[in-house]
Amino acid sequence: MPFTTRRTLLRTAAALPLAASMTDRVFAQSADKAVPAAAPKAPVKDVTRTLAHYLVTAKYDDLPENVRKEGVRTLLNWVGVAIGGSHHQTVDIAVSALQPFSGPPQASLFGRKERFDIMNAAFINGVSSHIFDYDDTHLKTIIHPAGPVASAILAYSEMQPVSGKDFLNALVLGVETECRIGNAVYPNHYDVGWHITGTAGVFGSAAAIGKLMNLNEQQMVWAIGLAASQPVGLRESFGSMNKSFNPGRAAANGIFAAVLAAKNYTSSDQMLEAKRGWANTISTKQDYNEITGDLGKRYEAALNTYKPFACGIVMHPAIDAAIQLRNENKLTADQIDHVDLKVHPLVLELTGKTAPHDGLESKFSIYHAVAVAIVEGAGGEKQFSDRAATDPTIVALRGKVKPVVTPGITPAQVDMTIVTKDGRTLHKYIQHAIGSVEVPMTDKQLETKFADLAEGVIPADQARKVMDLCWKVETLENAGDIARTAATA
Amino acid sequence: MPFTTRRTLLRTAAALPLAASMTDRVFAQSADKAVPAAAPKAPVKDVTRTLAHYLVTAKYDDLPENVRKEGVRTLLNWVGVAIGGSHHQTVDIAVSALQPFSGPPQASLFGRKERFDIMNAAFINGVSSHIFDYDDTHLKTIIHPAGPVASAILAYSEMQPVSGKDFLNALVLGVETECRIGNAVYPNHYDVGWHITGTAGVFGSAAAIGKLMNLNEQQMVWAIGLAASQPVGLRESFGSMNKSFNPGRAAANGIFAAVLAAKNYTSSDQMLEAKRGWANTISTKQDYNEITGDLGKRYEAALNTYKPFACGIVMHPAIDAAIQLRNENKLTADQIDHVDLKVHPLVLELTGKTAPHDGLESKFSIYHAVAVAIVEGAGGEKQFSDRAATDPTIVALRGKVKPVVTPGITPAQVDMTIVTKDGRTLHKYIQHAIGSVEVPMTDKQLETKFADLAEGVIPADQARKVMDLCWKVETLENAGDIARTAATA
Repeated sequence: MPFTTRRTLLRTAAALPLAASMTDRVFAQSADKAVPAAAPKAPVKDVTRTLAHYLVTAKYDDLPENVRKEGVRTLLNWVGVAIGGSHHQTVDIAVSALQPFSGPPQASLFGRKERFDIMNAAFINGVSSHIFDYDDTHLKTIIHPAGPVASAILAYSEMQPVSGKDFLNALVLGVETECRIGNAVYPNHYDVGWHITGTAGVFGSAAAIGKLMNLNEQQMVWAIGLAASQPVGLRESFGSMNKSFNPGRAAANGIFAAVLAAKNYTSSDQMLEAKRGWANTISTKQDYNEITGDLGKRYEAALNTYKPFACGIVMHPAIDAAIQLRNENKLTADQIDHVDLKVHPLVLELTGKTAPHDGLESKFSIYHAVAVAIVEGAGGEKQFSDRAATDPTIVALRGKVKPVVTPGITPAQVDMTIVTKDGRTLHKYIQHAIGSVEVPMTDKQLETKFADLAEGVIPADQARKVMDLCWKVETLENAGDIARTAATA
Repeated sequence: MPFTTRRTLLRTAAALPLAASMTDRVFAQSADKAVPAAAPKAPVKDVTRTLAHYLVTAKYDDLPENVRKEGVRTLLNWVGVAIGGSHHQTVDIAVSALQPFSGPPQASLFGRKERFDIMNAAFINGVSSHIFDYDDTHLKTIIHPAGPVASAILAYSEMQPVSGKDFLNALVLGVETECRIGNAVYPNHYDVGWHITGTAGVFGSAAAIGKLMNLNEQQMVWAIGLAASQPVGLRESFGSMNKSFNPGRAAANGIFAAVLAAKNYTSSDQMLEAKRGWANTISTKQDYNEITGDLGKRYEAALNTYKPFACGIVMHPAIDAAIQLRNENKLTADQIDHVDLKVHPLVLELTGKTAPHDGLESKFSIYHAVAVAIVEGAGGEKQFSDRAATDPTIVALRGKVKPVVTPGITPAQVDMTIVTKDGRTLHKYIQHAIGSVEVPMTDKQLETKFADLAEGVIPADQARKVMDLCWKVETLENAGDIARTAATA
């Protein structure tokens, strides 16, 4: 390991995704129940064309209010994490490696001053947004939907003005496309080893960019075909910079597919469903109804979720409980005798580190997570930093956290009892943690997360401006203003 | 089909690959026998590292003479087909689609005047070289090895001077890498639907570029990992422009992987062999000994073959026989009474069109192939053009061609008897056609193929210069001269 010390590697937010992904899988089941029963299976033909037809005809005005709203929240959350990760070592490396090859300075890098052509900019912003594994999650597939799509269309909108309405429509359609295609092959496709955010994500980017470029139906069919030819990402990359590479490269590949298709670069007309097409080649499961069923009626894009805490979601219920008890009782560390918590076995399996040495290790410590939540009332990147992991108060308190595996507790749940030195017994049961489909983060909480991530990267007033642009995206004359405002001068 | 008429699509050399691929499979078996028995299986660990170690330590001086020679022939053949395809509609589209996004004019397009950054140039030259499906073939895997590798390193050599020796070493190592990785997963990987030229090709490009960039072992491990994250191509794309997209994008993706790894963008250390790494995710067969066995001793790069005729290889024995009989007997069309030929069933199954209407259809007509070979003494692109397909002499002669499926004739063989009007019976049995591993094309034949492809694209004296540079590549101070000389002013 000649160039990178072990410590540097650990700082790359390396191992976090493992825990996140394993537990996301468990959570996926409960989210699944929220979806209406599937319609009868569509015949296995014209899958690609049906999807393409929908994409080229779907209008902003067709979007239900809740879908628009979730699209806006998806955007705001994503821009925040992209700014937050923008000065990570991983991004510095990507910028320096690609600068000699970039085309015209068409698009901004979030939180940075460099400008790249739209494909390279989309790649780098996509990397940026996934480094902390703190972006959005479609729990049914564990796809992080915004990365491949928002990276692509924000870059495109800087080069070619796009109205806010068209932008939001493209965002929703891109997310819809990748999540539906993901549904069609999940879980088999993910289980065997594909990083589904990158493999399905290419379609999201191609669909969204194709929409903004006003491709006709045949061109959209070809864009989907060229996207299918460029899947990105293997799960073995988790724990390295290669993980955040995947949504970024998916974004770039989708643009590549769409710009070629726009000039009538042809592909197959049945790339998704053909015998040696995408779904049959890349997965042992193919449920095409997930792609073509109820298009324009059922919206996967409405099911997007956002992480309130910068760690695998297996610890989220405990952090949620700890923060609630702290705030309700104005608790401080010195008041605590000990903390009992009843947890699912996965919690100790994945996050059982009793004495984490640094920020990254602390993401795998339920002891640290509860302690820092009580001391600081939060669970953001700062709470999983080297500073927090070695803070004497937090280190002392984590020794008083007593998790016990308890039958009947699901991974989504926790049962916490804080016993104070003065003899009080404070209890909190969490059925669904904040950030789940059932208990979504509030807009206010998304703003706090955004501001927290932007702190130290861009000034607070600039962060405020970017948030305002995101909230009012539907009224913008040019959605490219968002990316321009999120860059540094 | 609003923008492209059926006729235009047919002109894209669309359906040819189907026939080529199916028959290549049959031919693969005989080639297989030429390979020494495999050593005992290597343990499934350190596959990626073992390969990376080999790549960073292998020197030009280590290459056996026959491997060097085949590397030079691989280069010359590839440059010829890349020039030949350079003004196809597919390339025009790619150039016009990507021009707005290209970086600095670092590298030439073969046979054209535009210059692009090395990744986009490699993509376009890779497309160019595969359009006629007339490039080289590693028969054991049906990989077209030069496309992903030569596209990448020729572009790179223009940006960054590379000695001819280093260039040839990188070419061989790139071909070796992709063919060995292809061997490890073939045939299962191909059978399920992957276009192995694109999926394995990315590794070839990454390895060759990584070698030219002098990556250290760890960086080469990461380059392989990032390449593994970007497989390209599905067989369903065969018959569309998307097929030639695949080697081009593989070349670009390999460069992308290597330039990131060169700056220490990390990946997994076991991306090829890990449980959720490349081989397990993308194939049901994994034979890692094909990757790490006898490195530096057994050379897949020495097994490369070149097509003498611009059509699927199932017709090659018949064309070979017809040309030999024609030349030996100075035959002209008017002398022929009829042509009997004993063939394998695949010949009529794949190439049974009795009355092809145009150039592309003629690639699927054994009747046309034999007739044009007798009339023109060749089987290049010109012999499968619209002109040739409608030439009255050839049309008349094809009606006298009588193929008969005959037990005992393999797809590699043909038994031809030409009966002349003056009563002569001229016989030729082909055991292995020209262009096979057993009867390789001569250097002279490669030159004729090259000149034929270059005609009408670049002047004959320029083609001569490019060929000379290819033959003497090992003595060049800067291999970038080849690409520069192959471009138009």
